[in-house]
Amino acid sequence: MQKVLYPQREEWEKLLERPDNGLEDVYDTARGILDDVKRNGDAALLKYTRMFDGAGLKTLEVTQNEVDEACMQVNSDLKDAILVAKQNIETFHQSQKTQKEVVETMPGVQCWQKSVAIDSVGLYIPGGTAPLFSTVLMLGIPAKIAGCKKIVLCTPANSEGKVNPAILYAASLVGVDQIFKLGGIQAVGAMAYGSETVPSVAKIFGPGNRFVTAAKQLVSLKDVAIDMPAGPSEVMVLADESADAAFVASDLLSQAEHGADSQVIFVTNSEGLLEDVEKEVEQQLQELPRKEIAEKALANSRLIVLKTTDEMLDICNQYAPEHLIVSMRDDELIGNKVVNAGSVFLGNYSPESAGDYASGTNHTLPTHGYANAFSGVNLDSYMKKITFQKISAFGLAKLGPSIEVMAEAEQLMAHKNAVTVRLKKMEN
Amino acid sequence: MQKVLYPQREEWEKLLERPDNGLEDVYDTARGILDDVKRNGDAALLKYTRMFDGAGLKTLEVTQNEVDEACMQVNSDLKDAILVAKQNIETFHQSQKTQKEVVETMPGVQCWQKSVAIDSVGLYIPGGTAPLFSTVLMLGIPAKIAGCKKIVLCTPANSEGKVNPAILYAASLVGVDQIFKLGGIQAVGAMAYGSETVPSVAKIFGPGNRFVTAAKQLVSLKDVAIDMPAGPSEVMVLADESADAAFVASDLLSQAEHGADSQVIFVTNSEGLLEDVEKEVEQQLQELPRKEIAEKALANSRLIVLKTTDEMLDICNQYAPEHLIVSMRDDELIGNKVVNAGSVFLGNYSPESAGDYASGTNHTLPTHGYANAFSGVNLDSYMKKITFQKISAFGLAKLGPSIEVMAEAEQLMAHKNAVTVRLKKMEN
Repeated sequence: MQKVLYPQREEWEKLLERPDNGLEDVYDTARGILDDVKRNGDAALLKYTRMFDGAGLKTLEVTQNEVDEACMQVNSDLKDAILVAKQNIETFHQSQKTQKEVVETMPGVQCWQKSVAIDSVGLYIPGGTAPLFSTVLMLGIPAKIAGCKKIVLCTPANSEGKVNPAILYAASLVGVDQIFKLGGIQAVGAMAYGSETVPSVAKIFGPGNRFVTAAKQLVSLKDVAIDMPAGPSEVMVLADESADAAFVASDLLSQAEHGADSQVIFVTNSEGLLEDVEKEVEQQLQELPRKEIAEKALANSRLIVLKTTDEMLDICNQYAPEHLIVSMRDDELIGNKVVNAGSVFLGNYSPESAGDYASGTNHTLPTHGYANAFSGVNLDSYMKKITFQKISAFGLAKLGPSIEVMAEAEQLMAHKNAVTVRLKKMEN
Repeated sequence: MQKVLYPQREEWEKLLERPDNGLEDVYDTARGILDDVKRNGDAALLKYTRMFDGAGLKTLEVTQNEVDEACMQVNSDLKDAILVAKQNIETFHQSQKTQKEVVETMPGVQCWQKSVAIDSVGLYIPGGTAPLFSTVLMLGIPAKIAGCKKIVLCTPANSEGKVNPAILYAASLVGVDQIFKLGGIQAVGAMAYGSETVPSVAKIFGPGNRFVTAAKQLVSLKDVAIDMPAGPSEVMVLADESADAAFVASDLLSQAEHGADSQVIFVTNSEGLLEDVEKEVEQQLQELPRKEIAEKALANSRLIVLKTTDEMLDICNQYAPEHLIVSMRDDELIGNKVVNAGSVFLGNYSPESAGDYASGTNHTLPTHGYANAFSGVNLDSYMKKITFQKISAFGLAKLGPSIEVMAEAEQLMAHKNAVTVRLKKMEN
């Protein structure tokens, strides 16, 4: 872990640099596989599944029998925990519903917004080292609350052609309509273009490695919407002497174990705390099964000491972390001044893993500095806002002349005429 | 205009086909100019401005003197009209503000969302045949309401190096911070990468031709957020015998005059109305200064007769029009069933030009079928939603065990430990 004491502001940019996400290198590969999927449908999907996942599948769709079997395999402790998480995620995302509000901008001129569900959505759940059933909850629950009519899920099978039971249980619980054994670029292509068995969708959600991310970006240029650009996960912790070094260390490590490319940045105004945290990290690290991964991530991490709370806030807003933990005496006051972050955890008893699993907030969040312009996944991500207007004859009589003047000034006479013909009719 | 009576559902897809947007052909050009701008800054910007806009500029930024002069040149009728529009656009976008609502998902587990302005935004205003000062209002007003700290505007100058006075007036009125004489790919590059004189921004907004759109897409892959993919403008009109043929014709023509690639689709259940509309279009067309453009657009338009209201709704939702006009007896009932559209105009006195200019709704809307997944520009487009959580020791005591079970099942033991260390501390 690199320790940096009282860096000058000019040094911050360098200090906060993120590793290149390596997307440029994989666009060509992604383009090739996407084109093949577009042209050859299921045949291409089966081919790449055999090639990359080692699974010699005959059919891509998970059957009801497989789901039922998986549901029996999940133990009841895990089922109970998943139900608690589901309840909280539902409560929080349900609260994000908005009411239609008709605004009369002028007498007789009524305007309103209406949130309408995106008809069909595709959820991508990575395979790999950890079976991320929690992501099924995070992506599936708001889709259901929004009212999406078709929810499709793709996740790679292992080399025996099996999907982790907890993923199937969670998918069934939240009401996913169809599950396919598909991963990587080919999964993205299937949901973007459709195939004989996989339906195309209007928007694709979910995290993934750089191949998945590159594929999502490419299909988003033309065919389908995506949730956001994804990158390696990251956390920043702001802490003062009111923080608990063991807690902070555990939070840093839970980010570090995600992957060797995870980013962990600790910022404090207390040199003493920094030393304690460092010791605690070293100690807790020894106990972790994913120690090797965490060590690699920690090698790129930074422990930074700054003088003032204002500086700490500034460095945070400059970095725009995906996750931000504020373990400081004035956590809420400081949280109020955060302008760039994905999800913020306030106080000593709000570990990132609460939001990762079960407190109710979403864990699909903007990484790589995108928190400066993107929201994490929320109910709105599954809806679009359509605007409506209804103008009465009286309203148009009042508003119309302004429209005529503006249209004429933009040299769009047919736009003007659409008002003029109506105003004339009223005169008669 | 192509007339189609009672087409079968299987024929709809072909009937509703949009022309290719030609983006594939210009990505290489856009990439080249963007790279040059990134490397060479102002020198490249000045070079391309001379090359494409014919303006031999020494400096890119519009001076306060130029703005003051422009404000004097705009006549008072137009100023008054712009003020009416500004007031309505402000009222409607102001109403889109949301209040922070703290949700207690479980006792001791508080979660909330907070909307925070994107710090810096760039607005692109096309030059070309019509001076689109209305787009300055549509993009600038919500940016100001959101609280964006830096609002930059790029618009191409003419070959004399001048910007249309109404554009400068509108920019000054809404509170744009800096205006640059820049158009096309180079403008997008300047706002994405920054140069010696142009600051980089976090999100770029605004319509443009396919070069601008391709450039926005390319910079969005890595460097900056964009509002939405843009394409040629389009309108669909649903009308029954309660509609006024002259009004409908004026609406079709106001779309058609936008550009030769504009799309106009008229759908009715009345053959009689269709004939009347056709005659009215022919008649009104003769009076238009932009007749030639409108004629080209009309050549690609469709007049469709269907049997039932349900079919009319289905074809509309399948097409996902940018603008939808519902001139039908049950306009509000039908509007309620619209699920794919950018902006909807209900009744006989709500012409599209009202929303284009002055009723209060935004005119920057998803085209090319993107209304199936994208909202038009609205207040949220200038903000991101950050989630917060604060969990008490009591709350974590209740929620923690579920997190531990889930983290363990995902084989993320450090995630589990972040809870365990806290629960242990409480026991002591």
